[in-house]
Amino acid sequence: LCSSPSNRSRPLSRVAVSGGTHGNEMSGIYLAKHWLRNPMELRRGSFAVTPFLGNPRAIEKCVRYVGRDLNRTFTTEFLSSAEAEDKPYEVVRAREINQTYGPKGSAQAFDFMFDLHNTTANMGACLIVDSEESLLPMHMCHYIQTHYTRSPCPIYLYKLLGEETYSINSVAKAGLALELGPQPQQVVRADLFTQMRDLMACALDFIELFNKGTVFPAFEIEAYKITGRMDYPRYPDGEISAMVHPKLQVGVDWK
Amino acid sequence: LCSSPSNRSRPLSRVAVSGGTHGNEMSGIYLAKHWLRNPMELRRGSFAVTPFLGNPRAIEKCVRYVGRDLNRTFTTEFLSSAEAEDKPYEVVRAREINQTYGPKGSAQAFDFMFDLHNTTANMGACLIVDSEESLLPMHMCHYIQTHYTRSPCPIYLYKLLGEETYSINSVAKAGLALELGPQPQQVVRADLFTQMRDLMACALDFIELFNKGTVFPAFEIEAYKITGRMDYPRYPDGEISAMVHPKLQVGVDWK
Repeated sequence: LCSSPSNRSRPLSRVAVSGGTHGNEMSGIYLAKHWLRNPMELRRGSFAVTPFLGNPRAIEKCVRYVGRDLNRTFTTEFLSSAEAEDKPYEVVRAREINQTYGPKGSAQAFDFMFDLHNTTANMGACLIVDSEESLLPMHMCHYIQTHYTRSPCPIYLYKLLGEETYSINSVAKAGLALELGPQPQQVVRADLFTQMRDLMACALDFIELFNKGTVFPAFEIEAYKITGRMDYPRYPDGEISAMVHPKLQVGVDWK
Repeated sequence: LCSSPSNRSRPLSRVAVSGGTHGNEMSGIYLAKHWLRNPMELRRGSFAVTPFLGNPRAIEKCVRYVGRDLNRTFTTEFLSSAEAEDKPYEVVRAREINQTYGPKGSAQAFDFMFDLHNTTANMGACLIVDSEESLLPMHMCHYIQTHYTRSPCPIYLYKLLGEETYSINSVAKAGLALELGPQPQQVVRADLFTQMRDLMACALDFIELFNKGTVFPAFEIEAYKITGRMDYPRYPDGEISAMVHPKLQVGVDWK
């Protein structure tokens, strides 16, 4: 990455963090609830962070969503179509979030939004950014990779060419999603809870340095993009006939 | 355990195995589907096993159940009350299973039923029997513990004093449930699939030996029973305020 946030950039003053954008991914839900009780943990000298629960109804039922996936609902189509009556709950909720932390694409939008996720896949502490053109999040990723060394932190750039952003943190001016695994849905693992809390502390330290005028030099970094999708092998009747090899699925030797 | 199945006991001729009694516990679902395609794997010299899918509708949706927990539905109340109309799907399904492999408590019932489960908890390959008075299953557990050494196989005796049996394998004359973890719901782990398959092979070898008149000597064995339930610590508003310690939750050091 050949650019760095200039110290002439404006400091970030309004930062939010969503836990429970998916209501059965427990690290972020436990963290957001913890921070709502103990907001000082998210305070730094130059700014403070507003924690919130992304999808309260899904959290209550401990399911990913109740009507449709909230984290695919922050597009013009859903945020700006006619009345929300008869719409899934998540469309109504997306508009509330857009009103509070956006509106998306406007000057009033929050400066930054974090979004906290889990996966059952064994992918370490994955950092998800829309694209490499998002300079501030990319510098944050680089800072995290340099300073947080207790697990690998691969970077995943999710936005396909020409695609509109649709995720919850796209309502803010910039954003980063954390995707920690492996953890079963509906289960909270203390080790991943601690890992996510430490990663967030590291990311907030970066913002604090940025706000204080620190110049972050250029760097090269490795990141992953989707290049294609591969289905499972199947029987002629369509049933899946294979499974992921144990050496790929679990990071530890299970014997 | 001071008794042993006598070689004057009648051999077991009709044995069944249910996968997907809970529709999101994947090891048994994959195994039952595999055996339905390859029934020879379940064949022994003196008997054969009938595999079946416990809760097909829940399996299709990949959820634990659609109306009520099938594995709590094999009681007199649910099996014998009036017409099944307006009843949850699982009540109808329990009656089908009772007709096919029971009726529960009758001389026509199958000799043995296995039931395959997963858990997100780190409890190894748990062997679940109703009570220590079930001599044949207890001897099977002892045989498995002696011959299957790739993971701990603790025994859990689930039936409380005076309680009616309610599980799917209670429709057969005897039964054993396997509960393998940790595995996320809706996820299939190849290592646990292999473990369950090997445990089943071991259990069938025991039945084959029993059928051939092998005498199994008396033994002492360790087994677990519920002695009480402990809630999580909670905040005054009822919200859970703690989580399981990482050294207890995951069998491996996660660093």
